[in-house]
Parts: sequence; C-alpha cells; structure tokens
Amino acid sequence: MAAAAPPPAPTPAPEPATSLPETTPLFTRIRLATPSDVPHIHKLIHQMAVFERLTHLFSATESSLSSTLFTSPPFQSFTVLLLEASPTPFLNSTLNPNPFYKPITKLLNLSNPINDPESDTFKTLDGVTVVGFVLFFPNYSTFLGKPGFYVEDLFVRECYRRKGFGRMLLSAVAKQAVKMEYGRVEWVVLDWNVNAIRFYQEMGAEVLNEWRVCRLTGEALQAYGGAD
Amino acid sequence: MAAAAPPPAPTPAPEPATSLPETTPLFTRIRLATPSDVPHIHKLIHQMAVFERLTHLFSATESSLSSTLFTSPPFQSFTVLLLEASPTPFLNSTLNPNPFYKPITKLLNLSNPINDPESDTFKTLDGVTVVGFVLFFPNYSTFLGKPGFYVEDLFVRECYRRKGFGRMLLSAVAKQAVKMEYGRVEWVVLDWNVNAIRFYQEMGAEVLNEWRVCRLTGEALQAYGGAD
Repeated sequence: MAAAAPPPAPTPAPEPATSLPETTPLFTRIRLATPSDVPHIHKLIHQMAVFERLTHLFSATESSLSSTLFTSPPFQSFTVLLLEASPTPFLNSTLNPNPFYKPITKLLNLSNPINDPESDTFKTLDGVTVVGFVLFFPNYSTFLGKPGFYVEDLFVRECYRRKGFGRMLLSAVAKQAVKMEYGRVEWVVLDWNVNAIRFYQEMGAEVLNEWRVCRLTGEALQAYGGAD
Repeated sequence: MAAAAPPPAPTPAPEPATSLPETTPLFTRIRLATPSDVPHIHKLIHQMAVFERLTHLFSATESSLSSTLFTSPPFQSFTVLLLEASPTPFLNSTLNPNPFYKPITKLLNLSNPINDPESDTFKTLDGVTVVGFVLFFPNYSTFLGKPGFYVEDLFVRECYRRKGFGRMLLSAVAKQAVKMEYGRVEWVVLDWNVNAIRFYQEMGAEVLNEWRVCRLTGEALQAYGGAD
C-alpha cells in the first residue's frame, strides 16, 4: 500500500537518452531502536524541535533519553522504531537479532538519488543511514476495554521527505497494533497542517475536532501536585 | 473549584433561623484499584458513556477490563485510582496494604447529606461506597526526554458532583507525577465544555488549542495495519 504503483524497472548505469527513465535503488529498513541508537534519536528529536520552531521547549539530553527509554520490553512501554536507508542491500545485522520484532524491509526505486548532507552524522555501526523514527507507547480505551498505541512522534529527515517514509513508519505501528489485537492508533496533528490532516483522513483516520489537549507542566504541576 | 459559582445556601429542613448551619461529615479515600474492583469500574465506565452520550462506542466488558488492566505494576502502565466515601472513618483496610501507594484520605463537611440512590450497587467489601475513578498511564515527551502521565478518564458519580472530588482525583495523579519526577500530566477536554476548560486553566493547565487528536480504529486500522 505504501507504494500504490509498482516500481519501474531499475537501470543503474547511465544509458543513451532513448532508454527508459533512470532510477536509483534505495534499500530501506524499519527496526527496533536499541540503547546504542540514542545519539541518533537525540539528534532527530532536536531536528524535529527546530522544524516545529519549538527549540525553547527542547531539554532532552542523551542521558535523559537513555535513562527513560528501553526500560521495559518493546511495545509494553515507550518504543522507538528507526527507519534506515542504504544504497546496497541490508546484510543480516548482528545489531538487532531482536526476538520482539522482525524488521520490515522495502526496496524503493527513486527517480533521483537523494543528496544527504548529513549522511556521516546519521551513519550507524552497520554503515547504513538513519532516516527517521517513530516513538509510540500503549494507551488505553476504557470504552473498548483494551489498549491501543499512541504515537508521540514521527519524524523523517528533510532530504528524505515526500517519498512515503512517514507512511511506512505509521503503517509499522498500525501493523503492530493489529498483530497485538489493540483497538486504536492515535496521535495529534496541528490544526493548520491541512496537508497532514488530508493525508490522515485519506488513510481512514478520524480527526476528533471537538477535543482539546490539556497539559499541566512545570511550576503549575509542581504547585498542583504538591498541594493538599 | 469544580463548581465555578458557590452553591446556594442549603435549606435541608425548616428550622429556626437562629441556629448554626448543620454539616454532615463524609470520610473520603483515594486508593489503588485492584482486580476485585473491576465490576465497579465497569459500571462507572458505562455511566460515563451514558453521560457523554457515547454508549454506541461502549464495548468494554468485565472480562476485557480484567484481562488488560492490572497486568503491570501500578504507574508503569494502565493504573486506576478509586475514590470511596463513607459516613464513618475508614478502618485500616486489609484489602489494600499496597506497597506502591499510600491511600489519600480526607474528611469533608457537607452542608447537605448526599442522597445516593445507587449506594448498594457501589458498596465494596469494606462496606464503603465507590464514588468515582481516574484511569491514567505513562506517556512520554521527547522534548523533555522524560515520561509524564496521561489521564484517559476521570469520572465522579452524579450525586457526588460539585464537591471537589474531580479535583481530588486529578490532584492525586499530579502528586504521583511530582513524586516520580515526571514532566507532565495531560488529558483531553471537549471544546464546548467551557466550565471544565475554565477550571483547568485556573489550576494552571495549558489548553493546546491548535492540536487535534487523530484516531485510526476499527476497519480502517485493520486495513491500514494489514496492508504491505
């Protein structure tokens, strides 16, 4: 479903102008993040804060992420899936022989190669490149009497956008929810982000226009949570 | 605070105008729910669905609640706090010698006794009455790099409303968040519920007006999560 049309036949080497359009293969993989991915996750979250113009709210450190993520088995609490890309096929990684999750791989054929100015920064020990992530955790519906997943963040680095990667990551969460017989997947979107809202509605999501998120944090939380 | 305007002066029985107003003591307690509370929790959720006119979305059963709640230690996953009331002081219960949570007790002096038409239905093994509940679970802020709590439901039975019980339950969650050094407490409110919104703002909560909740559920979730 992520690629509605079948990919065109790849033609890796330059050829006369009469040939079919060239494409560039890109191998992609979604896998469970591990503690060793924290530096990349931290950089991705920071890029997201910059994109959302919310760096004044950003105070996460590698240390705070390390001490709060990966404390429970995946899917039972905060869970990060990473999306990676490589120009060559993924080898069977020794990094992630994870009993909880079988990585999802997909070969894309791009009409143009991606120029990634940060490929070195986001290179993993496997020699592949981190493209984006999704962080999610169980929530609960009392009406259904069962859990779901709440997607806190979904982020794809700028040069990889508009290629279906966001959809791949969200779909991976939905697949896991179906597999675990969970009732819902939920997330929030900014009301002015009409393109995102249209995209979510087209995939069958309902936008709950009447609900508003309330947040108690900082000094107000301390004051209220400390009060009798 | 739950009642924005003070209640009118009670006139329980015709009396000489010179006497002092009588008050009725009500002992209240917030404690961790246990699996044996599921029948009461199920009834409370159903009453909430009726109140919100959403019974068509209500499919929880005692069995579905039992199999999905109480699967992890409290506060690490889905957690229910119950509010109980009694006309006499609470005995040291053997029901809940819970190492995870020390019950919060409070004595109220009401200007009128509460007429509870369902006191038998909501009687516990301790002989006290279940008044309401709050269900919450950890969420995560990537910007803060730490967990918070998300309050999925907060409900007080009708005859106990406008006496500060909602505030007691929400405050109990905030206290626990502060105790665990969590960064936030969040929940949602309907945009037309202006009294609730004013109440939340007065307690220091921020209402995030630009965000909309998106939900993928039912057949759309099956379709999306089952697709390649």
